[in-house]
Amino acid sequence: MVEAAIVNILREIQPESMGFADLGCSSGPNSLTVVSQMIHAVDATCHQMGRSLPELKVLLNDLPGNDFNHVFELLPELYKKLKDDYGIHEGCYVWGVPGSFYGRLFPVRSLHFVHSSSSLHWLSQVPASLGASSGTHLNKEKIYISKSSSASVIEAYQQQFHEDFSLFLRSRAKEMNIKGRMVLSFMGRMSPDPFAEEACYQWELLARALMSLASDGLVEKEMIDSFNAPYYAPSAKEVEREVDKEGSFVVCGVKAFEIEWDVSDSRTLKESTGHRVAKTIRAVVEPMLESHFHLGTDMMDDLFRRYATIIDDCRSERRFKYTNLVISFIKKG
Amino acid sequence: MVEAAIVNILREIQPESMGFADLGCSSGPNSLTVVSQMIHAVDATCHQMGRSLPELKVLLNDLPGNDFNHVFELLPELYKKLKDDYGIHEGCYVWGVPGSFYGRLFPVRSLHFVHSSSSLHWLSQVPASLGASSGTHLNKEKIYISKSSSASVIEAYQQQFHEDFSLFLRSRAKEMNIKGRMVLSFMGRMSPDPFAEEACYQWELLARALMSLASDGLVEKEMIDSFNAPYYAPSAKEVEREVDKEGSFVVCGVKAFEIEWDVSDSRTLKESTGHRVAKTIRAVVEPMLESHFHLGTDMMDDLFRRYATIIDDCRSERRFKYTNLVISFIKKG
Repeated sequence: MVEAAIVNILREIQPESMGFADLGCSSGPNSLTVVSQMIHAVDATCHQMGRSLPELKVLLNDLPGNDFNHVFELLPELYKKLKDDYGIHEGCYVWGVPGSFYGRLFPVRSLHFVHSSSSLHWLSQVPASLGASSGTHLNKEKIYISKSSSASVIEAYQQQFHEDFSLFLRSRAKEMNIKGRMVLSFMGRMSPDPFAEEACYQWELLARALMSLASDGLVEKEMIDSFNAPYYAPSAKEVEREVDKEGSFVVCGVKAFEIEWDVSDSRTLKESTGHRVAKTIRAVVEPMLESHFHLGTDMMDDLFRRYATIIDDCRSERRFKYTNLVISFIKKG
Repeated sequence: MVEAAIVNILREIQPESMGFADLGCSSGPNSLTVVSQMIHAVDATCHQMGRSLPELKVLLNDLPGNDFNHVFELLPELYKKLKDDYGIHEGCYVWGVPGSFYGRLFPVRSLHFVHSSSSLHWLSQVPASLGASSGTHLNKEKIYISKSSSASVIEAYQQQFHEDFSLFLRSRAKEMNIKGRMVLSFMGRMSPDPFAEEACYQWELLARALMSLASDGLVEKEMIDSFNAPYYAPSAKEVEREVDKEGSFVVCGVKAFEIEWDVSDSRTLKESTGHRVAKTIRAVVEPMLESHFHLGTDMMDDLFRRYATIIDDCRSERRFKYTNLVISFIKKG
């Protein structure tokens, strides 16, 4: 879908200078993978079209607290690759753009292609109406939408998603050129139910692990009652509804991928599936758990050991899968 | 000079979107000081002209190894200040541009104002002909141009300055708009002699400190022979000569400032001038000394104690001053 978007931009807009933004670039070798793919697609398409490469402005965005230094340290190698593989000596500029993509990040009509992977399921904040600040907690013993959640919990999450995603669309609508393309991939669901297992079950089991710490008197139950993940896994329909409301984009492609919680071949590994899944989830959620619960390393280890065991226990019954949505958009004229 | 440049850009070009680059932004509160000054000048001038503020693209450049993370952490505060002091809610974008300013960093005609402070006296490399790699060292017992340097040492430094500064000008010439402005400030000299004390004496005394370590058998003399600072303090004339040769810019203002090595009031301080100067110089040169000499902290402390003593001994005879040049340029039509 990224390649198709690039080909279409080059054929339809034929820009002399092409603005590309990766929103939520994070920090690590993956941060530049999509940049390499994109440049490869631009090079191949231009070669086919018999035209020279446009000037490329590659804008890597993440929150100001992201480790941009690490990304920037990888740039000399990328520039060397551009020289060796594509003969690009100058005319490709890779910059860092610190800020939240829930708001304006770029000048008016400066972008042709927007990409974001594994970022848009994060909300700008925990829905305020869940009561973290007021002390009347709506979502007790849970940390995300759950099968037992009340309608007001689901509504709070949906409202926050609506506010965030519509602001995202309005911001990108100003920044993108007409016929520009956007490919977003994030955690979502195929089911219309926001409490479907594909969207919630990792949080459900993590809440159980936290509650088992509380049962043993290691964490206060009130701390769990007041914690909720700033996360929402929408359905493609919900996304399309926001796109229709905002009005600047057309959805031109939707794909849903089922991803196993544990993709490794368990026959060749010593660790249980539960431990491997717990590690993956821990890498993502530990910072936000830490800032709320202030657990310390030993207790955090304990929590994720319990989480691993719970996953292994449940997994004997069924095979868990996430749903990843990839959606492609065109900016209207 | 920065303010005058901004006023002239706004009056002569009247850009709707203004590109501002700070080259060698470093990392610390100072990194954003010039950004604040610039935005203040833009705001005041637009107010006087009765026009609305242009969109501002602020591009902070330094080498990929610079601590951009630290600069980016200061951005939320800057954005708050823009909101509170100038009512700027969006339309100001501050980005990071990792790369060497001795080469292209920005798209064609994307900049209106270029600023650089305390960076351009650093060369892209130690002049190769000084022989660091060949083993025949031209500048023995010294680490920069010295009164006793041979013509070939001076020539090597001048040639490297010529190559670097002309590449700098060629690169900026492509990136800047017609009638764009550039204000550069860097260490230089008023004297036509490249071995004038104002330009060299801090290196001369540092070489003496290194040689005293060698006398005591703590550093190999060959290591000093093979080390040279990637530094050049040009005269305004030399800069103007490069500008004339390159042909894209007009120099519209030159100021030379004498800066005391030690500006603090020594009557109120316990440390000697030598120690204070040694600290300042150490903050700048320690990384490059470390990567060549591999001294370790104790030996580095020893070196700068010796340096401090040497400065205090010499300083009883005279009062040392650096020369700082500030030069303002206009991009020709």
